[in-house]
Amino acid sequence: MAESKEEDVSLGANKFTERQPLGTAAQTDKDYKEPLPAPLFEPGELKSWSFYRAGIAEFMATLLFLYITVLTVMGVGRAPNKCASVGTQGIAWAFGGMIFALVYCTAGISGGHINPAVTLGLFLARKLSLTRALFYMVMQCLGAICGAGVVKGFMKGPYERLKGGANIVSHGYTKGDALGAEIVGTFILVYTVFSATDAKRNARDSHVPILAPLPIGFAVFLVHLATIPITGTGINPARSLGAAIIYNQDQAWDDHWIFWVGPFIGAVLAAAYHQIVIRAIPFKNRG
Amino acid sequence: MAESKEEDVSLGANKFTERQPLGTAAQTDKDYKEPLPAPLFEPGELKSWSFYRAGIAEFMATLLFLYITVLTVMGVGRAPNKCASVGTQGIAWAFGGMIFALVYCTAGISGGHINPAVTLGLFLARKLSLTRALFYMVMQCLGAICGAGVVKGFMKGPYERLKGGANIVSHGYTKGDALGAEIVGTFILVYTVFSATDAKRNARDSHVPILAPLPIGFAVFLVHLATIPITGTGINPARSLGAAIIYNQDQAWDDHWIFWVGPFIGAVLAAAYHQIVIRAIPFKNRG
Amino acid sequence: MAESKEEDVSLGANKFTERQPLGTAAQTDKDYKEPLPAPLFEPGELKSWSFYRAGIAEFMATLLFLYITVLTVMGVGRAPNKCASVGTQGIAWAFGGMIFALVYCTAGISGGHINPAVTLGLFLARKLSLTRALFYMVMQCLGAICGAGVVKGFMKGPYERLKGGANIVSHGYTKGDALGAEIVGTFILVYTVFSATDAKRNARDSHVPILAPLPIGFAVFLVHLATIPITGTGINPARSLGAAIIYNQDQAWDDHWIFWVGPFIGAVLAAAYHQIVIRAIPFKNRG
Amino acid sequence: MAESKEEDVSLGANKFTERQPLGTAAQTDKDYKEPLPAPLFEPGELKSWSFYRAGIAEFMATLLFLYITVLTVMGVGRAPNKCASVGTQGIAWAFGGMIFALVYCTAGISGGHINPAVTLGLFLARKLSLTRALFYMVMQCLGAICGAGVVKGFMKGPYERLKGGANIVSHGYTKGDALGAEIVGTFILVYTVFSATDAKRNARDSHVPILAPLPIGFAVFLVHLATIPITGTGINPARSLGAAIIYNQDQAWDDHWIFWVGPFIGAVLAAAYHQIVIRAIPFKNRG
Repeated sequence: MAESKEEDVSLGANKFTERQPLGTAAQTDKDYKEPLPAPLFEPGELKSWSFYRAGIAEFMATLLFLYITVLTVMGVGRAPNKCASVGTQGIAWAFGGMIFALVYCTAGISGGHINPAVTLGLFLARKLSLTRALFYMVMQCLGAICGAGVVKGFMKGPYERLKGGANIVSHGYTKGDALGAEIVGTFILVYTVFSATDAKRNARDSHVPILAPLPIGFAVFLVHLATIPITGTGINPARSLGAAIIYNQDQAWDDHWIFWVGPFIGAVLAAAYHQIVIRAIPFKNRG
Repeated sequence: MAESKEEDVSLGANKFTERQPLGTAAQTDKDYKEPLPAPLFEPGELKSWSFYRAGIAEFMATLLFLYITVLTVMGVGRAPNKCASVGTQGIAWAFGGMIFALVYCTAGISGGHINPAVTLGLFLARKLSLTRALFYMVMQCLGAICGAGVVKGFMKGPYERLKGGANIVSHGYTKGDALGAEIVGTFILVYTVFSATDAKRNARDSHVPILAPLPIGFAVFLVHLATIPITGTGINPARSLGAAIIYNQDQAWDDHWIFWVGPFIGAVLAAAYHQIVIRAIPFKNRG
Repeated sequence: MAESKEEDVSLGANKFTERQPLGTAAQTDKDYKEPLPAPLFEPGELKSWSFYRAGIAEFMATLLFLYITVLTVMGVGRAPNKCASVGTQGIAWAFGGMIFALVYCTAGISGGHINPAVTLGLFLARKLSLTRALFYMVMQCLGAICGAGVVKGFMKGPYERLKGGANIVSHGYTKGDALGAEIVGTFILVYTVFSATDAKRNARDSHVPILAPLPIGFAVFLVHLATIPITGTGINPARSLGAAIIYNQDQAWDDHWIFWVGPFIGAVLAAAYHQIVIRAIPFKNRG
Repeated sequence: MAESKEEDVSLGANKFTERQPLGTAAQTDKDYKEPLPAPLFEPGELKSWSFYRAGIAEFMATLLFLYITVLTVMGVGRAPNKCASVGTQGIAWAFGGMIFALVYCTAGISGGHINPAVTLGLFLARKLSLTRALFYMVMQCLGAICGAGVVKGFMKGPYERLKGGANIVSHGYTKGDALGAEIVGTFILVYTVFSATDAKRNARDSHVPILAPLPIGFAVFLVHLATIPITGTGINPARSLGAAIIYNQDQAWDDHWIFWVGPFIGAVLAAAYHQIVIRAIPFKNRG
């Protein structure tokens, strides 16, 4: 049934061999095989060194992520005027650039999540086991706390005064605005991650994975450009938790739920959009 | 007739096997086959899920594009001084960076247009059917309206005051200047899209499509660097329409035609330049 | 004589099969064949459409290059304060980013020079004929004049006042400083072009040409970051000529020779460094 | 024993064929062969032209690196206000961008170190001989001195006043803070270099080396964003030495040890982290 073969459309063009009748379900992907969903519990995993190595890599990457980004935020805050610092745009580059470099470095070790929302999204798509997802999230949060702690070690006074890079809803915005900004921002990030790691696209367009870490890093950069004025931009619960624990003031804790609920909702929506709309996976075994 | 074989010239060098006598027409491209032009109407397309999926992807991408870019423009406008914001350069990065990330993500689903001028250019080169081109344009405009609407939902007061990212001819420039800037700017964008998606180059230089989304994003970034002072930079009628409808003030509507006529002329010229000068397609079947 | 086989060293590592005894000449490159040097005059070339097409592409690329960059310079100059514009860094991005995008787009058509100094360097390495080199240089200069002219058409008054992007030695620097800055700056650019287009590296490391336009664009960006305060940065005689002709004031013409002599010396030095030191080509046929 | 096969995890996903029982050592990497460690002394090397060519390339690259970066620092310092210059963010781009371009250009000639700390890290991983490591370090330091000297030649007065780009501990930070910042910053750089040049990843994921120079350049850019306010950022003893020798004031020499001890500790830690934790090399021949 070659008629129903679904094909990806290449950049700028449309291949007209796409003929899957609407409403039907069978999709024949001859040259591609969807990997089996990861099992919820994978007992052998816990005895594998690569499992713990992956956790260490997530810990170290999140530590370095918080270290560079919070230090950049502090440097901008301490400057006599913003023009004498790297500025708000420099902060956005620090967040996005670190994600680019760290995803490049850790993709081959742990998958390069560095963010519990990304881990949640990929878990919902059954790309990793529940055990591994929870282990990653714990390691990410521990790494973030350590990374923010190292920065505080460098500058105790200014750290308190400059709010330690903690995510707080800015004056002039409601908590609802902040929640919305976190949801859409995380949606953009997790949607980019799904697009970059789509096994089907990778199998067909060998060039998709080559650039992959760059658009993922840019997604983080872009969301920061847009939403730093609203909340300082979370879209990463580990980053928000690390900064909040080390800063540890009421103001950071009052808004803290937003930076878990928002990113997790955004990740769920992105996973649903990619799996249901883009890949139509739920309808594939109905044929 | 190996003499008349036309070859692409590789970076920095010239291959001297190029001997197509001027004025002759036959071009033998042994290792390359131009895809057939897309038919104007492709009835089977309307029954294909991938057709609607592509439209949804264009809608979603344009929504996210307007969301991030208009929010960045608002953030720069609200800041007490420009140095305390990401600045005009940050706005240019938001537009160009989003196009990079979104073209990367949607190229495999819809071709990654996110811009009616790009769709027009590729339609004129017969890379997609008229049905698909019109469907994409409608979905892009709807997405842009929704994206700008979400931003207004976050900040009703400032949105009006800061003109909502609408494209307006700046004081000191005539409407003719603005139209010219839109034409040349869109020419640069659509010319880059044609260069990146040229089937002949892709077949010969396997590395051309790998970077493709990056120069396309940079083209948008560069045109914004140059023409934000003139009009705020449109070069994308869906982006201009979405911002204008949500802002909905006389000033935005008075100049609005410029941001449809300019980009469409630029896209036509870029398509003509690429197909006639660079590829010499009209002369190829005269031989 | 496998002992004398010279091998490129891969990133970060050293392969220890390099055993070419110093002072000997024979180098066996089994899997690589240096292309023959281009003849000085290639009569057939003048009858080939691809020759004229390449010239048109150089003309158009240099026109667009001057259009975007001079317009960006004007926009920064007109802004009430530098913080309200894309700033000096934005100007550097405009120059470097345009070279990245245009080299990407025109590499397959003309080799993507867009700069008489690059054309001179590649001609000295015998990568193109003298005919073609001169034709490219003329087309680049014509394109640059037209590009600067279009910008002047948009803004007659400010254009004069803001010196039209012309290259002028800044107060506090001597003409010798400016000449030195042009020489070293062009050396960096042309050295990067040679590294990116080295036929031997491309044959061995298939990944070298993929990124190529990006480091070339970055080289232009970086030289602008460093030398905009000295001369506004030329490193491209066509760019300097186009801006000087359209601006057409004594000050621009007094210093103009610097922006031809400097880049041409830099290009000669870079070609010599690459061909003699890096590739040892003069010593290769002594064996 | 297919059970114990260790596999790299691809971006975003986890392959579940990883079953190496914790505490066991044998790792079967069928499709990959670790290159033999480089010998400490490689007598043949000293008679090879490619050895000296590599040293010249390191010299030239470090010269150009200091030239562009110190000139950019001077330009920002001389500007009437920071907004009229490329700013602190522009300085960070100059450092990171030059490393990107120079690693791209010299990777095939010398491995593209341009930094004694990188050379030390790769030597500890036995990727090059002791002879070569020492030769590279000497050439890097000589190149850095020449590069800073050229800049001083352009501007004698301002050079002294603006401290010549020398690394000095800023007011408000202790020497311990500066040392810590150098250690962590160099760790990030050398860890990125190890990830980009990992022979095992390169063998399996053919796309890893394509982007390689870009994350390495970004690592330098990011560390500068974060630590310019603390020390001006060294993470490269040759860069610090070159600037200090040409500036040659007490203040620069008092702190100078920090910019050798810090980067070397950081490089040792990164090499240990990569070889022991990520690659588990010390445990591999216990099986």
